[in-house]
Amino acid sequence: MSGKDPKKGKMKEVKKETGLGLSYKKDENFGEWYSEVVVSGEMIEYYDISGCYILRPWSMSIWEMLHGFFDAEIKKMKIKNSYFPLFVSPAVLQKEKDHIEGFAPEVAWVTKSGDSDWEVPIAIRPTSETVMYPYFSKWIRGHRDLPLRLNQWCNIVRWEFSNPTPFIRSREFLWQEGHTAFATKEESDAEVLEILELYRRIYEELLAVPVSKGKKSELEKFAGGLYTTTVEAFIPNTGRGIQGATSHCLGQNFARIFEINFENEKGEKAMVWQNSWGFTTRTIGVMIMVHGDDKGLVLPPKVASTQVVVIPVPYKDANTQGIYDACAATIREMNESGIRAEADFRDNYSPGWKYSHWEMKGVPLRIEIGPKDLANNQVRAVRRDNGAKTDIPMANLAEQVKDVLATIQQNLFDVAKQKRDACVQIVRTWDEFTVALGQKKLVLAPWCDEEDVEKDVKARTKGEMGAAKTLCSPFDQPELPEGTLCFASGKPAKKWTYWGHSY
Amino acid sequence: MSGKDPKKGKMKEVKKETGLGLSYKKDENFGEWYSEVVVSGEMIEYYDISGCYILRPWSMSIWEMLHGFFDAEIKKMKIKNSYFPLFVSPAVLQKEKDHIEGFAPEVAWVTKSGDSDWEVPIAIRPTSETVMYPYFSKWIRGHRDLPLRLNQWCNIVRWEFSNPTPFIRSREFLWQEGHTAFATKEESDAEVLEILELYRRIYEELLAVPVSKGKKSELEKFAGGLYTTTVEAFIPNTGRGIQGATSHCLGQNFARIFEINFENEKGEKAMVWQNSWGFTTRTIGVMIMVHGDDKGLVLPPKVASTQVVVIPVPYKDANTQGIYDACAATIREMNESGIRAEADFRDNYSPGWKYSHWEMKGVPLRIEIGPKDLANNQVRAVRRDNGAKTDIPMANLAEQVKDVLATIQQNLFDVAKQKRDACVQIVRTWDEFTVALGQKKLVLAPWCDEEDVEKDVKARTKGEMGAAKTLCSPFDQPELPEGTLCFASGKPAKKWTYWGHSY
Repeated sequence: MSGKDPKKGKMKEVKKETGLGLSYKKDENFGEWYSEVVVSGEMIEYYDISGCYILRPWSMSIWEMLHGFFDAEIKKMKIKNSYFPLFVSPAVLQKEKDHIEGFAPEVAWVTKSGDSDWEVPIAIRPTSETVMYPYFSKWIRGHRDLPLRLNQWCNIVRWEFSNPTPFIRSREFLWQEGHTAFATKEESDAEVLEILELYRRIYEELLAVPVSKGKKSELEKFAGGLYTTTVEAFIPNTGRGIQGATSHCLGQNFARIFEINFENEKGEKAMVWQNSWGFTTRTIGVMIMVHGDDKGLVLPPKVASTQVVVIPVPYKDANTQGIYDACAATIREMNESGIRAEADFRDNYSPGWKYSHWEMKGVPLRIEIGPKDLANNQVRAVRRDNGAKTDIPMANLAEQVKDVLATIQQNLFDVAKQKRDACVQIVRTWDEFTVALGQKKLVLAPWCDEEDVEKDVKARTKGEMGAAKTLCSPFDQPELPEGTLCFASGKPAKKWTYWGHSY
Repeated sequence: MSGKDPKKGKMKEVKKETGLGLSYKKDENFGEWYSEVVVSGEMIEYYDISGCYILRPWSMSIWEMLHGFFDAEIKKMKIKNSYFPLFVSPAVLQKEKDHIEGFAPEVAWVTKSGDSDWEVPIAIRPTSETVMYPYFSKWIRGHRDLPLRLNQWCNIVRWEFSNPTPFIRSREFLWQEGHTAFATKEESDAEVLEILELYRRIYEELLAVPVSKGKKSELEKFAGGLYTTTVEAFIPNTGRGIQGATSHCLGQNFARIFEINFENEKGEKAMVWQNSWGFTTRTIGVMIMVHGDDKGLVLPPKVASTQVVVIPVPYKDANTQGIYDACAATIREMNESGIRAEADFRDNYSPGWKYSHWEMKGVPLRIEIGPKDLANNQVRAVRRDNGAKTDIPMANLAEQVKDVLATIQQNLFDVAKQKRDACVQIVRTWDEFTVALGQKKLVLAPWCDEEDVEKDVKARTKGEMGAAKTLCSPFDQPELPEGTLCFASGKPAKKWTYWGHSY
């Protein structure tokens, strides 16, 4: 924001007076910056119960966009929505041993209602495998009942004690969870990847956040499942990887425990193959961390509930009514073309204050209309992502604005990808590994794929930032020449794997 | 279903063989019939925790339709979606005395996570007034922050002990809850009625269920509010009224307790006026109770995820492929016209079995295509609501099907209204009142509008069906001549009021 622009002359003073603007800088105090920007950008309100947050309309509208996209896609795949209860009885919850071991410490328990203590406490779902699968067993009889493909949009409770962070790690969050059962492993495998591709599209196409598709290690896979695929994002500022969303093949483990059998086409009894997959409101936090800057949020146009804000810039002697009418006409035209645009006509704030306000909220494009613009039959457009200013003629405005929004969407992704790629460090030895970790890199290393070695790496890297661990083995593998050795164990390497600290 | 129809010759045998069909009749064992039809129609699966139910895709799709309609309407009104936490701390929950007295016995409490007992238990929201209003107080400063109009779609927990019934009374249910704040009572009053009109449309236009708009008595109004408006439905089989959805004006009571103040245009401190309003998955239960019959569910076309089912009826010597192709072409044509149609091509079930199956699920229209239909270039259409059969020429099929669906929608409402209206009984004396109650009538009586009198009526009518109480005072009031006396107290009557047993 240049002080030379006459429209914004009093910008800095306004900021000081009104308290608009952030106290922390993203590159200097990332944690404080994040805590501040989610509140100042009106995404979140902190709540009086730790680890629980209020999702204000500004973030909820983003969740609704993601919901709309994903829900339409899975309906095309003939997956149907259902709703299973919030509560699980302890006997059912504890049926799968590995699974409950993974979740037990975080399960919240209801033990009474009104003044009555209950004889048997009831758990709040930390995920719904054990809630749903007893009924899969009931509903599935023959091969014609398959595939059974259900999804639900709901809230989930995991009472974690480590560092609650809005969107990223909260004790209650919103998600969708898909639960499907197939007659064959082939169908199950295929769906795992189809869903993972939808998750990639949510991050890359909607949120403009680059992710790596890959497979989790045995240590990091879903408790009780066969294998876990993931889209992994990376936060350059903290040097931490973050699990974006996961699509699990559960194999036949839950089928065995919950007795989900069917009669196949030959008339024989067989067990189903199952998947489960989910993405959460964490997506929004990743988007904020990746794109936000020192002026506030930066929203990708595809998920912004307001893509364009129009601000009248009247001067004392100017044709104020003419400017207001032009703003209203501009909004009308854009709305009719499907652009989500609104005007800020408030008369108790200066244009400069409004610029800062909408920058803080991350609206992708600002349009200013002042006397000069009116005279020249044009508007001034200011991009949120890079601050670039252009004058756009009123004629054909909507089409040009659409182009600019598409450019912003692409640019956000390109810049984020560039930054992420610049953090990737290929290492081949333990020494290179520890140096790269210290430099907050996303480490790509040849690995022997042995569970004990991962445990050992975790033990040896324990420190302030937590232990380093595998993030995923990317599907897109660099060449691994015969004889390449594991960076950690010195044994023959089996695959390239991303390592790092994580959220 | 006529035994003379050659297509359905083996109908009754099939029913016996397959177990399709209901064991109970709606008019003979209503309670058993309802419990059976929600399961056999694949709406509900009973869950292993009493009072919690699984909403299967067949009912969830109806909830999604209601959600879609209402969400679009409130967005036109500039009401925005948000999400507040599931959990409330006891101090906040108990801030409004009348309010918490109304809900306290049903509140479920979380007292531990993992193996750790908590020092302070946390409540699960029974409704979100106390969750939200501390933040309304924070967000609202001046008159320009008003109106503040939020809504959320979420789950609610009320651990009731009386008669859990799927959809109608469950310990967890889904709803939307709107919470709004205005500068003036006029705006608040106006919104209460605007929302109530949307609720009427949900029942009457979408679910084809007639309702009465009216005001609740002081005894029956929302705990802590100023006044409650309602849409009341009636179930002729049980002679019980049922609260369909409520729109409350909260007045300034919560504003006073939660200190929700603003500076008005004159620069003076003022308190906001608030509303809250909600409708729940109960809507689906009311629809089932009103329209269902001895063959199963009857779904109004506007909320049916499958409006038309097409069933091929091949005979041994017939052109089976030709029939299947005609079914597929029919589906394509209807889908392209926006009709939600699907074919049942399963080869392991007879046409007769399929008729019963889709009748049980309540699909509004069945289309059969057999050799004769194929030869005559027509289809046979069978209405679910009244069993009427017509032959429809293939040419212009989609338009004609749309007309039939519209007719079914209207007919369901007309029949339901006729039945409901036939139950209304106007009474003027206590004796008339008790006779009408015994006959399961919806009683309309002149009332003095005194709380003690309602309490007295409740005490005097306590019996097997529970006590009788006021349902609402309808906005549409019959004339009340000067000198009319209250049926119960003999004092001068102030209004006509519906009385009855209720759910």
